Amino acid sequence: MSSIYTDDSLALHTDLYQINMTESYWADGMHERKAVFEVFFRNLPFGNGYAIFAGLERILAYLKDFHFSESDLAYLKNELDFQDDFLEYLKGIRFTGDVYSMVEGELVFANEPIIRVETTLAEAQLIETALLNIVNYQTLIATKASRIKQVVKDEVVMEFGSRRAHEMDAAIWGARAAVIGGIEATSNVRAGKLFGIPVAGTHAHAMVQAYKSEYEAFHAYAKRHKNCVFLVDTYNTLKIGIPTAIQVAKELGDQINFVGIRLDSGDIAFLSKEARKMLDEAGFTDVKIVVSNDLDEYTILNLKAQGAKVDVWGIGTKLITAYDQPALGAVYKIVSIENEHGEMEDTIKISSNVEKVTTPGQKKLYRIIDRENGRAEGDYITMHDEDPTTEKRIKMFHPVHTFVSKFVTNFDAVNLHVKVVENGEIIYKNPTLNEMRQYAHDNLDLLWDEYKRSLNPEEYPVDLSQKCWDNKMRNIHDIQDKVDEFSSK
Amino acid sequence: MSSIYTDDSLALHTDLYQINMTESYWADGMHERKAVFEVFFRNLPFGNGYAIFAGLERILAYLKDFHFSESDLAYLKNELDFQDDFLEYLKGIRFTGDVYSMVEGELVFANEPIIRVETTLAEAQLIETALLNIVNYQTLIATKASRIKQVVKDEVVMEFGSRRAHEMDAAIWGARAAVIGGIEATSNVRAGKLFGIPVAGTHAHAMVQAYKSEYEAFHAYAKRHKNCVFLVDTYNTLKIGIPTAIQVAKELGDQINFVGIRLDSGDIAFLSKEARKMLDEAGFTDVKIVVSNDLDEYTILNLKAQGAKVDVWGIGTKLITAYDQPALGAVYKIVSIENEHGEMEDTIKISSNVEKVTTPGQKKLYRIIDRENGRAEGDYITMHDEDPTTEKRIKMFHPVHTFVSKFVTNFDAVNLHVKVVENGEIIYKNPTLNEMRQYAHDNLDLLWDEYKRSLNPEEYPVDLSQKCWDNKMRNIHDIQDKVDEFSSK
Repeated sequence: MSSIYTDDSLALHTDLYQINMTESYWADGMHERKAVFEVFFRNLPFGNGYAIFAGLERILAYLKDFHFSESDLAYLKNELDFQDDFLEYLKGIRFTGDVYSMVEGELVFANEPIIRVETTLAEAQLIETALLNIVNYQTLIATKASRIKQVVKDEVVMEFGSRRAHEMDAAIWGARAAVIGGIEATSNVRAGKLFGIPVAGTHAHAMVQAYKSEYEAFHAYAKRHKNCVFLVDTYNTLKIGIPTAIQVAKELGDQINFVGIRLDSGDIAFLSKEARKMLDEAGFTDVKIVVSNDLDEYTILNLKAQGAKVDVWGIGTKLITAYDQPALGAVYKIVSIENEHGEMEDTIKISSNVEKVTTPGQKKLYRIIDRENGRAEGDYITMHDEDPTTEKRIKMFHPVHTFVSKFVTNFDAVNLHVKVVENGEIIYKNPTLNEMRQYAHDNLDLLWDEYKRSLNPEEYPVDLSQKCWDNKMRNIHDIQDKVDEFSSK
Repeated sequence: MSSIYTDDSLALHTDLYQINMTESYWADGMHERKAVFEVFFRNLPFGNGYAIFAGLERILAYLKDFHFSESDLAYLKNELDFQDDFLEYLKGIRFTGDVYSMVEGELVFANEPIIRVETTLAEAQLIETALLNIVNYQTLIATKASRIKQVVKDEVVMEFGSRRAHEMDAAIWGARAAVIGGIEATSNVRAGKLFGIPVAGTHAHAMVQAYKSEYEAFHAYAKRHKNCVFLVDTYNTLKIGIPTAIQVAKELGDQINFVGIRLDSGDIAFLSKEARKMLDEAGFTDVKIVVSNDLDEYTILNLKAQGAKVDVWGIGTKLITAYDQPALGAVYKIVSIENEHGEMEDTIKISSNVEKVTTPGQKKLYRIIDRENGRAEGDYITMHDEDPTTEKRIKMFHPVHTFVSKFVTNFDAVNLHVKVVENGEIIYKNPTLNEMRQYAHDNLDLLWDEYKRSLNPEEYPVDLSQKCWDNKMRNIHDIQDKVDEFSSK
């Protein structure tokens, strides 16, 4: 159990091979060579046209605190047989490098650098697993939430999924990511406390069962709570639940705010329409209908098509677990490393899976925005010594089908990377969660609707500069020559 | 960020409605009524024939520590407007009840009580969300791991999924659950430290890139590590990777243990067979082939059918996220509550979704084992005052299709619930993780193979005793009468 260590750190929250490699680098005197790693994913999740980046705040806290504790070192020595000289080195290690990152709430697409880490080879290697663990989950959930929000549009969405989340961290960090993606509230009180998210919820079936009747339960609830949302499906929604809610609300009059009723089972399309009628006829036209029964963007779209009368959507399992695609595949790849002469050299990973070939070199990422219509033309990846902000005209071409190209003029090139860590010092101040959500929301205005539809969206262009492309090709050919040379030996 | 609170507790790791309901109970003097809640799920995950329970150790730690901290109470007061009198009550609350639970590694099936909580209504309500959060994820992963192990059989399985896990808790608790389900090792060092799991891993592509050649990288690795597993697919597996691994191993001779090579991309069936041939021809017949590329029980079955030569399976994303069904739907339902006269009364939740109707009353769970063949005949749910261990002959019948029934004689009825908490005191000593895995492993011998196959397994019987069935029917009819009475008003 984690509780037996009072000094548990997150430095061991890594794959063993990172420590093994670090040991070899250190033994060879390679550990302090400067290396550049990039975080990116190869495919957008859920067939969506964009993703929403989340996770930076957690990453910065992790980097700031990065160290091996006494009990970590004791474990490495006693259980994994690492040797004292190397452990002495680990003991002193801290994160001392630079990090460039997108900010939380940024629109992100496949094959573009989300985060660029520039530090010693040893440090860069040790932090990989934790960075990916954070980025993959939080970005996945922010994206799922945004997707749901695209379908819901103006109604309220609340996150109700703690009980189905993948253990405790997922419940709270998932709730936070969902807010960045656009949802309004969570049921998880701890997430509310830690991140300042509005917290929502009223009562469950158990309360009705404890009081043996909805009438008693609603009255009991109302005694201590001014704002009442009554759950009406414990026994029979239309025959008892809703009539009782209406009766209690009438009896209590101004003593409560009859905010809503909640439906948690049955045919939501039918029941919500009936409920709306019953509430309206009783004069409760402002009373909201909250629904929560295994919903996601597909069921919501369907319910809306059926004319369901829903004001608030409570989304549990399908959001917090990203049910239809529960993993984002962000990876962390070395793109450049210092050689024995102190010069940076680009590096590439070739693979028989073509999409796994990396793009070498220290790169920058720009969003090209048309000055006339304010929409994004695409994202543009350049080498670090290029500056499209000073260019009048750039050629953008598809990184696979290179004959697909266009020239763009009259644009703003917005650098999407912010320097967040400098020489190990956190120099970025996290915005509030509301600001992040607003940022994500406003960013979506940059995209044409075709990129935002939930089914078969258009592919947003993420293009390489000519220089970046040429460099990639040169690196590929070098490797091919190497393979040929080796084989002919 | 969680780090700003030094006294963060897990009592707020709950849905807001639990606290709201508790407040109403407290205001009405209902909060100390005794209540019985049960944890169960309605459907087995992955279409599997069984599940493996995991999560108890974490639950016991949570219950032992259950309290609202100063900052929790301040948050409830300042941000959520709870009143002082109620907060004063919350401040003193601890878990004081009894808990009966299956042990970790137990075989569990749909619709049977996994955990039974008997305590005050208030306490029972407050712990629901955390209990489900823990049970749902850990049981899901233990089950997925067991399913993978059924297909793999005698080879080794290692858990490599931290980077794709749903945040940090999932990475470590998932690794632990996977061990209970049968896997041998994890790559996550922190999971190794916290839970005593064997930790595995050697090096990544980045190391080959950093050294610019496999030859240099393998030599560098071997300098500090006696046991070597070389990753051979950075540039070209068959043309460079494997020949280089063989060359380096020959050069180093007894200086290293050439334990294996790892394939992480490409056509695993083809490459593993070629690799086996190349290694064997070089005299390295004992050298293992480790593979790791988006594997799960389906791809493993397929690779085996193609005659792939694999000794060790590294499973990442698909295991740690339970990719094909990333949520288990365990629920926590009230089944009995003390009335105003101090008597326990059963309670039921009716639903228009028939499978959501609960089974009322305080119940026990037995596994009926045939004394002759040592196999399980089925599980048998009784009321708490029944004792099938003293019966010679019991009638088991299907809880939905009641005409499907059989009489069983010459059996052992094994009580699957252990009292783990008494008056708030933890009275259960957790076995070691190895013991839990062994227990799960041995338990599988109770099941006929038909329940264990990965595709379309037979449905294992989980039956109600006659008394339990009669009680459920009586409760349903009582509710129906109530609905009719209400409607006719």
